[in-house]
Amino acid sequence: MLMAKAKFGANYKEVEVGEIVHIARDMPLKLECGVEVSDIPMAYQTYGRLNAAKDNVVLVCHALTGDQYVCGTHPVTGKEGWWDRMVGAGKPIDTDRFFVICSNIIGGCMGSFGPKEINPQTGKPYGLSFPFITIDDMVKAQAMLLDQLGIGKISCVIGGSMGGMQALEWARRFPERISSVMAIATSTRQSAQNIAFHEIGRQAIMADPDWRDGDYIVNNTYPSKGLAVARMAAHVTYLSESMLQEKFGRNLQNGEEFTYGFGADFRVESYLRHQGASFVERFDANSYLYLTRAASYFDLTRGGTRKLTDVYAGTHIRFCVVSFTSDWLYSSVESRNLVRALNAIAANVSFTEIESDKGHDSFLLDIPEFDNVVRGFLQ
Amino acid sequence: MLMAKAKFGANYKEVEVGEIVHIARDMPLKLECGVEVSDIPMAYQTYGRLNAAKDNVVLVCHALTGDQYVCGTHPVTGKEGWWDRMVGAGKPIDTDRFFVICSNIIGGCMGSFGPKEINPQTGKPYGLSFPFITIDDMVKAQAMLLDQLGIGKISCVIGGSMGGMQALEWARRFPERISSVMAIATSTRQSAQNIAFHEIGRQAIMADPDWRDGDYIVNNTYPSKGLAVARMAAHVTYLSESMLQEKFGRNLQNGEEFTYGFGADFRVESYLRHQGASFVERFDANSYLYLTRAASYFDLTRGGTRKLTDVYAGTHIRFCVVSFTSDWLYSSVESRNLVRALNAIAANVSFTEIESDKGHDSFLLDIPEFDNVVRGFLQ
Repeated sequence: MLMAKAKFGANYKEVEVGEIVHIARDMPLKLECGVEVSDIPMAYQTYGRLNAAKDNVVLVCHALTGDQYVCGTHPVTGKEGWWDRMVGAGKPIDTDRFFVICSNIIGGCMGSFGPKEINPQTGKPYGLSFPFITIDDMVKAQAMLLDQLGIGKISCVIGGSMGGMQALEWARRFPERISSVMAIATSTRQSAQNIAFHEIGRQAIMADPDWRDGDYIVNNTYPSKGLAVARMAAHVTYLSESMLQEKFGRNLQNGEEFTYGFGADFRVESYLRHQGASFVERFDANSYLYLTRAASYFDLTRGGTRKLTDVYAGTHIRFCVVSFTSDWLYSSVESRNLVRALNAIAANVSFTEIESDKGHDSFLLDIPEFDNVVRGFLQ
Repeated sequence: MLMAKAKFGANYKEVEVGEIVHIARDMPLKLECGVEVSDIPMAYQTYGRLNAAKDNVVLVCHALTGDQYVCGTHPVTGKEGWWDRMVGAGKPIDTDRFFVICSNIIGGCMGSFGPKEINPQTGKPYGLSFPFITIDDMVKAQAMLLDQLGIGKISCVIGGSMGGMQALEWARRFPERISSVMAIATSTRQSAQNIAFHEIGRQAIMADPDWRDGDYIVNNTYPSKGLAVARMAAHVTYLSESMLQEKFGRNLQNGEEFTYGFGADFRVESYLRHQGASFVERFDANSYLYLTRAASYFDLTRGGTRKLTDVYAGTHIRFCVVSFTSDWLYSSVESRNLVRALNAIAANVSFTEIESDKGHDSFLLDIPEFDNVVRGFLQ
């Protein structure tokens, strides 16, 4: 077991990123873009214990800017992992019972094969020489990791948002390995609006001269401003209008008078700036480019050339599909389309639309009904 | 009558901006921020003829990035004015009947007092030394312009989006001068979500080093990239998800294969980039900062310190409020709140929610039912 260090964010803070294995050592991983990669690092965390029958594995797939630190203290931020409230002893994904694995997706920046890793051929970070990856590539890499860890079958693959895309791709790519799938606040394909939002984020990053055509690490710069704008633009889409109105409304940051300036007069402005600034400290700008690209490319129907009903025809997998009423990024309509296709082929599927005013981020937040759905499905 | 030239956009293209008068010559205009300004230019256009009774005046208020070129050929873009389909001989706002006036709002960039105008005290463009302005200030300046043109009463003040905010402010500030108001796709106050979107746009502009703390003109630079990102982020909010899905879906720009690159693979990406690039040619970056700030400050209730019902208590004005079903920037909920307040004080108000899948931009687009509402209200 290898413990690796990595540098993060605008200040290139160096931290231990945890357990890492190298995959694709005997046989290369062929990416959808055509590039073959070998001997690439996969960083991962596990929680709970693998039982003797090896049938208690839950694979958690993280979202766009998540990572393998599902619970416990995050080594970069010092905060709780992104799903600490869901995963742990006695929690809905109960580590007293399940062996939970989460790996950093390829293209990511928490130790797995990503654009800030060193390209062995040049001795420099990949930057834009990093190959383009897809959701399918992420899933193939995860499967190779599990092979290497000696894990065959998975009881449940579970993920929200882009993690849900991975879960759905798992059900298509490796149905023989998995018993059930939970696809939360996600879609079978990235919508035009979501492609548009991601394009804005990428343009904001690439507009920053400190991005240096992706070579900011060797130039010792960092596109902090561009990445912060990208995060701010994305963050608004994770929340609902009513939640923003209720939480911030038109409240001013200081006092009761406008400053008549371009400072953060409104609390919602200050909040957004903080989101941008803290993101820059924990995430890699090139990773953001590659991962948003991967999300945009995601479409289980491949541009309509295959039907969803064909994708999952004859599947034995139990599906649980969850959406949240105020999620306008991956709305309930998207989930219903998936459920309709699964019903059409008489697949085993349950669908829950959960009442919440917290928008897309609902899947990360304290919603007891959601906890019950996850706990119940895993029973 | 003065014809002025002005330089625009990234290439500082010089064009005639049309008719200009100077206002606040005898008495300064006191802005809400406390600054008093004198002898400032107001650029405007008129369409149709003022009748002998001077009772056929329609004041059109333009939106955030609009200008006085309501119809005819725009001198900068060479395209039709922004409401050419609504204003003209025989059109819903019929210039055979009405004398239509539209002035460039202060803070704007089409010849009126704005941050790219020359500060007479320094001989240089104002840049960030330009005073902060509000919707109320815009309206006071418009009233001074009308005074100077010898126009007392206005038959109807009409505007969409931020133009609707001006119309509502007119009804509060100068009720004695106006007979009716059409407030279209607007709100009585900027919501938290909309404040957030505008903050993203400003941060994108100010992140661009070519912005030079607002002094790009004297430095002969232009924050094209930042302004383009701001426009892209805003533009998505002007459209509906269903319209984007229907118009672009996941269609690729060239051919049927992904390029596995960061070019504009998807048509919606290419479209957005074009929106950003063309905006940069016609709009001033500092104006964008000041005008979005003015919109964020807008709240007829002044942070709840006065009630809407008090704002319009006893009004004789006929109101027509229009919203569009798929507009998520200024949704029908906002319009209904206004209508509810007007009904509570027994004001003369009609409300129409128009079925449209085109989002906020519906008020600029070809929607016959909307034409009929405008035509009917002005009869």
